[in-house]
Amino acid sequence: MSASLDTAIAAEDMRWWGWGDPGHQSALPDHVVELLREEVGIAEDPRRPVELEDVKLPPSALGRAAHRGLSDAVGAARILTDHQVRVVHAAGKGYVDLLRQRTGTPEAAPDAVVFPDSHEQVAAVLAACARFRVAVVPFGGGTSVVGGVAPLRGRQVAVVSLDLRHLRGLVDVDRESLLVRAAAGTRGPALEAELAAHRLTLGHFPQSFEYVTIGGCAATRSAGQASNGYGRIDELVRGLRMASPSAELVLAAQPASAAGPDLRELIVGSEGTLGVITDVTLKVRPRPAETHYEALFFETFEQGAQALRLVAQERRAPDIGRLSDEEETRLTMGLAGDGGLKGRLGRGYIRTRGYAGGCLGIFGWEGDTDDVRQRAGDTLAVLRRAGGLQLGGSPARAWARGRFAAPYLRDDLFSLGVMVDTMETAGRWSGLLGLREAIIAAVRQTLGDRGTPPLVMCHISHLYESGASLYFTVIARQQDGAEIEQWQAAKAAATDAIIAGGGTLTHHHGVGRDHAAWLEREIGPAGVDLLRGLKARLDPAGVMNPGKLMG
Amino acid sequence: MSASLDTAIAAEDMRWWGWGDPGHQSALPDHVVELLREEVGIAEDPRRPVELEDVKLPPSALGRAAHRGLSDAVGAARILTDHQVRVVHAAGKGYVDLLRQRTGTPEAAPDAVVFPDSHEQVAAVLAACARFRVAVVPFGGGTSVVGGVAPLRGRQVAVVSLDLRHLRGLVDVDRESLLVRAAAGTRGPALEAELAAHRLTLGHFPQSFEYVTIGGCAATRSAGQASNGYGRIDELVRGLRMASPSAELVLAAQPASAAGPDLRELIVGSEGTLGVITDVTLKVRPRPAETHYEALFFETFEQGAQALRLVAQERRAPDIGRLSDEEETRLTMGLAGDGGLKGRLGRGYIRTRGYAGGCLGIFGWEGDTDDVRQRAGDTLAVLRRAGGLQLGGSPARAWARGRFAAPYLRDDLFSLGVMVDTMETAGRWSGLLGLREAIIAAVRQTLGDRGTPPLVMCHISHLYESGASLYFTVIARQQDGAEIEQWQAAKAAATDAIIAGGGTLTHHHGVGRDHAAWLEREIGPAGVDLLRGLKARLDPAGVMNPGKLMG
Repeated sequence: MSASLDTAIAAEDMRWWGWGDPGHQSALPDHVVELLREEVGIAEDPRRPVELEDVKLPPSALGRAAHRGLSDAVGAARILTDHQVRVVHAAGKGYVDLLRQRTGTPEAAPDAVVFPDSHEQVAAVLAACARFRVAVVPFGGGTSVVGGVAPLRGRQVAVVSLDLRHLRGLVDVDRESLLVRAAAGTRGPALEAELAAHRLTLGHFPQSFEYVTIGGCAATRSAGQASNGYGRIDELVRGLRMASPSAELVLAAQPASAAGPDLRELIVGSEGTLGVITDVTLKVRPRPAETHYEALFFETFEQGAQALRLVAQERRAPDIGRLSDEEETRLTMGLAGDGGLKGRLGRGYIRTRGYAGGCLGIFGWEGDTDDVRQRAGDTLAVLRRAGGLQLGGSPARAWARGRFAAPYLRDDLFSLGVMVDTMETAGRWSGLLGLREAIIAAVRQTLGDRGTPPLVMCHISHLYESGASLYFTVIARQQDGAEIEQWQAAKAAATDAIIAGGGTLTHHHGVGRDHAAWLEREIGPAGVDLLRGLKARLDPAGVMNPGKLMG
Repeated sequence: MSASLDTAIAAEDMRWWGWGDPGHQSALPDHVVELLREEVGIAEDPRRPVELEDVKLPPSALGRAAHRGLSDAVGAARILTDHQVRVVHAAGKGYVDLLRQRTGTPEAAPDAVVFPDSHEQVAAVLAACARFRVAVVPFGGGTSVVGGVAPLRGRQVAVVSLDLRHLRGLVDVDRESLLVRAAAGTRGPALEAELAAHRLTLGHFPQSFEYVTIGGCAATRSAGQASNGYGRIDELVRGLRMASPSAELVLAAQPASAAGPDLRELIVGSEGTLGVITDVTLKVRPRPAETHYEALFFETFEQGAQALRLVAQERRAPDIGRLSDEEETRLTMGLAGDGGLKGRLGRGYIRTRGYAGGCLGIFGWEGDTDDVRQRAGDTLAVLRRAGGLQLGGSPARAWARGRFAAPYLRDDLFSLGVMVDTMETAGRWSGLLGLREAIIAAVRQTLGDRGTPPLVMCHISHLYESGASLYFTVIARQQDGAEIEQWQAAKAAATDAIIAGGGTLTHHHGVGRDHAAWLEREIGPAGVDLLRGLKARLDPAGVMNPGKLMG
């Protein structure tokens, strides 16, 4: 590959040791550092990542025959083995991933990174990998927080990362049917920009939006912050094409069908363990003329949850809807500082209305002006009736402006010696409050026992008639010298509590490597066996993303 | 089994030679007979079904060891082999099924009919069948029109029909989460009656509602006439339990999940080829206070289709929505007679407004009074803007009253020597009009060539943002002595045209035996291979419903 293409690839990469744009400048405001020092404690000295050249990688184990096989598939220029590209593809963006990257000790690294630019090249790569017993880790945006792109080789002799960024762009637009076909490696912003030229939107905005690929979203069942309005990715993906080592699967987009089991739902969420999704047909919408936000305050989390249940069950849910618990509300205000949310909301203002403590809800609607007015009015009427105090749009717009920025904050906390991780689930309304309490108690107990008592914040989001998602942010002082064990203990405690409490293992992060050990508790031994049966059919050599999903 | 239980079973059965209640009295009005005589021709003499005792069945091939194995599973009293029960379970309710039943020459018959009353008994039956190489045909309401309950034995030595009617009733009600669990054999009306006691409804009303079981709906992906409002069965079934010869699969109901592929979507639509669904967890709604109907007239089918596209894409779809083409509108009026729809609509009334010919649309909304008023207002505004002429509720209420009666009419046409069959598909809006024309042309050509030129009527129903369903009714004089070949030719022509035109093989009838040969053209060889892989895992002996779905 020419030096210029090398450079082009590097320019699109995220920071290898953290999130996002390498040019991103951030400095935590003093009041945030103070808050963290008070609440969980911080390290004396800033902890910086090692230099790129100091990251330790094993030598590439890709044999000459395998390299030749891959060269036949994509051309030698599309196979990179340099230090930087291997480091970038050594991990996703989970807490432990970054911990290891920052200390220059990744768990593993791909022996090469392959950049196909077509479905046919992907299929040829998979065939070559099956032949030469090389594991393949599909790599879209590389944003997985569950170890989904960890370069594990399983029982294979080597492992390559298959970077799909050159499969990009809209392939087809059927405006009359509001369906478009997009190449799997198309990133969120690029897809929305292309759709905007057709006055369309997909409306899929996971927190990782700026870096995700649409194929990655499909492979991992992402939800998107506006899923109430637009639907989850499993509803948006109507058709797809997948290359597997032993077959090609093409499922045409149909409005609905009774032609047997829905195989689309098998591929969506398969996390690269069955094959590589190379394009998807997506349900789109006319681009909204307007976005309207409102914030409401609820006296208690229970009151707010009840209000969200009512709007969902009366089918008046906003396109975006989330409710922070008391702790998240308190810390959100603290982090925002006097010039931000805190000042605008004014604890005094709220307190005079009898809402001491209390919970902040953020709600958004998108569409034509009339449509937004009507639907927002419908939702707000239900929320007010259920006890919500309307605060206007300003706090909600502040949330919207920062909606993709949280991962940068995590990097800043790393440098203070502070662990931050997020965990999520979904459950029925009837058990939701108990589920939340059980998870918080489990994490508090576990981290408290290790001498690092955490802050645990929670919000409800993604509303359904039968239940909702719970999303937790855990912040604690890093346990020096046992950072990974600390995280593993918290993760295990939370996940055990999720399953024991009747929640789903994951609502939108996916299974990856980190949740794989629990999958059998969600779908039973028969369910895991079925997935293995599917894999045996599509990937008999077992090269596809070893160690993920079904473990 | 005691004589009284025998009698109880017989009392619930449909007419063995046709649809529905054995006590149902019907006589076609003279004007309908005249219309049919004019339009397609009728037989000189009425054609009555043979007597029950004259139906020819082969002797039961169930061996003594197998019978003992089944007795161990359910008790001897729950295994019936008498003539009547075998005849009743010899066929579903497809055109050829009834043709053969009426002439006393079913293609096959079960060697026994087994009536388990629990999940455990079902599991025990499947294990016994796998051991003794006996094919199992799950039998819910027996309403399949695609050969889904045909008692084919495949490569097995015998075949039993597994009648699930004794797995019935609500098992659990979670009102706060609007989720209920129901045993698979619960029939439509019984389920709605139990839900009504909790002020709930499922809102699932296929034309076969009065006889379907909820497990059968799940196994065959039924849509239901109000699917725009309540969702298809694949959306309503949130969790399930399935017994298979080699495993038990339990999938808990979650609001949504990213825990890998959605296995629920594999079982829904598996048509008894992977196992037997024994209970389902269903998304329900508060029982509506009101149902409101409106009829509208459109100048052309194209104009009406465009209007339906707009309401669907603006997400203002009515809960029930259908648009008849010119031919269906004309014949609906003709069949209704002067005292019915025809009189109330008054061709003159419509003509004075410039709608000569034209197309009738039927629309319905269910919910609270305010909700219905608002949503009906929203829909009607779009429909009027798109050219619809509002006719009031009367023609639509007439449709609603007769919504489950069409299958009785088919029996009456049989006696006149007239074939009537229905075919359906779904496709994208951008290709929908062309798809309809191609299917109509193919059926006209095929039946015309055989000397039996048909009436072919069509309506759009089941609206989606990306497309809609097309439903065809074909009426022709039976071709004496070649009735089955006549039907096969029409079916093949229509199905080839569906696939060639980009439609789905079936939107809500299912695949069964009749569509199995075409499935590979829908999901590709890799898709069929995946289904076979799943089956090999769950049903290694191949006893589950041979010859259906994947052929």
